[in-house]
Amino acid sequence: MERQFDEELKILKEKLLEMAGRVEGSITVAIKALTDRKEELAQEVLENEEKINLMDIEIDELCMRLLALRQPMASDLRFITSAMKITSELERIGDQAVNISERTLELLQYPLLKPLIDIPRMATLAQDMVRDSINAFINGDDKLAKDICLRDDEVDSLNDQVFRELLTYMMQDPSTITRAVPLILVGRHLERIADHATNISEDVFYLVKGKTIKHHCEQSGWRTESK
Amino acid sequence: MERQFDEELKILKEKLLEMAGRVEGSITVAIKALTDRKEELAQEVLENEEKINLMDIEIDELCMRLLALRQPMASDLRFITSAMKITSELERIGDQAVNISERTLELLQYPLLKPLIDIPRMATLAQDMVRDSINAFINGDDKLAKDICLRDDEVDSLNDQVFRELLTYMMQDPSTITRAVPLILVGRHLERIADHATNISEDVFYLVKGKTIKHHCEQSGWRTESK
Repeated sequence: MERQFDEELKILKEKLLEMAGRVEGSITVAIKALTDRKEELAQEVLENEEKINLMDIEIDELCMRLLALRQPMASDLRFITSAMKITSELERIGDQAVNISERTLELLQYPLLKPLIDIPRMATLAQDMVRDSINAFINGDDKLAKDICLRDDEVDSLNDQVFRELLTYMMQDPSTITRAVPLILVGRHLERIADHATNISEDVFYLVKGKTIKHHCEQSGWRTESK
Repeated sequence: MERQFDEELKILKEKLLEMAGRVEGSITVAIKALTDRKEELAQEVLENEEKINLMDIEIDELCMRLLALRQPMASDLRFITSAMKITSELERIGDQAVNISERTLELLQYPLLKPLIDIPRMATLAQDMVRDSINAFINGDDKLAKDICLRDDEVDSLNDQVFRELLTYMMQDPSTITRAVPLILVGRHLERIADHATNISEDVFYLVKGKTIKHHCEQSGWRTESK
C-alpha cells in the first residue's frame, strides 16, 4: 500500500514535469512566432492550449483521488495540495502564451515597428523561472524557490523599460500606436508568466520550510504589478 | 466529532464570506478613487491588501488543518480543496484592485481625459460576479455558477469597447497617451477580476455537479483574453 502510494506520487511528479515541458514549449513557440513573424507558429500555440487544459484537469483529478483514497498526512498532504495549486499556475502560464500569440496575430497585420530585443530577453528570463520553479518543486529546493522570487524583480524592471520605450515611440509618432500597444501587452503577458512562476516558488517554499514567504517576497513599488 | 467538523466547516464558510466582503470593498474603493480622483482612497486600497493577504494565509492553513485532522471524504474533501482554490482567486482579485489604485495614482498627476462611463459599468459587473461566485459556492448553486461564466463575455466586450475608444483618442491626439494607457490597463485589471470570478464559478460547478465546465465556458475570439 505504502509502496503503491509512492508509485502514485511518482506518476504525479512525472505528469507535472510533462505539463511544465509543454507549457514552456508554448512560451518558446509564442515568442518565436512574434520575433520571426510566423502566423503558423502563433496558431500552433492556440492549438497546444487544449492539450495543456486537459493535462490540468487530469492532474487535478489524480490529486483528488490521492487525497480521497490515501488520506495522506503531513508532508504528502502538503505535496498534493501544492501540486493542485501548481497545475493551475501552469495552466495560466499556457493561457498567457495564448495571449502573446493573439497579440502576434494582430501585429502581423502591420509592418515591424522595431527589432525586438528586451521582449525576447524577458521571455528567456520568464521561461527559466517557470522551468526552475517546477524543478524546485520536484526536488524540494527552497533555496532555488527563493532565488526565483528575487528574479521576478528583473522581469518587472525589463517590462517597465519596454513600456517606457514604446510610450516614447507612440508620443513621437502616433501612427505607431496600433503596433506599440500590442507590444506593451506582450510585455505584460510575460510579466504575468514570471508572476505565476513566482507563485509556484512561494508554494514550494511553503512546502519545504512549512512557513510562507507569500506576500513577503514582493517588492512594492510605483510600477510594480501586484500578482 | 462529526458535529465539531460541521462547526469547523461553518467557520471556514464565514471566513471566506468575510474575505470576499473585504475584497469587494477594495474594488468599490479603487473605482471610487478613480472616478472621484481621490488619492486617499487609492491609498486605502493599498493598505487593505495586507489584511486580505493575511486572510488568505489564515484560510489556507485552516483548510490544511481540516484535511490533515479530519481526513474528509467525498463532498467535504471537494469543498475544502475548492475553498483553497477560491481563497487564492480572492487574493488575486484584491491584487487587481491594488493595480487599479496604482494606475489611479499615475492618472492623478494629469487632468481628467474624459468622464468615465464604461469603466464604472465594467466595475459593477465584475463586482457582482465576485459576490455571486462566493454565494454560489456557499449555497452550492451550480445554475448561478454557470450564469456567472456567461456574464464574463459582457465584461470582455465592454473592455474591447474601452480599448478601442482609448486607442482612437490616442491616435487623434498623442498628447493623451500618458492618460489613455493607464485607463486601458484599468480596463484589463477589471477584466482580470471578472476572469477570477469565472474561475471561482468553474470550481463551484465542479464541486456541485462533479464534472468540469472549466475550459468550456470560455469563448475563444480574436480579442478575448485567455484567463
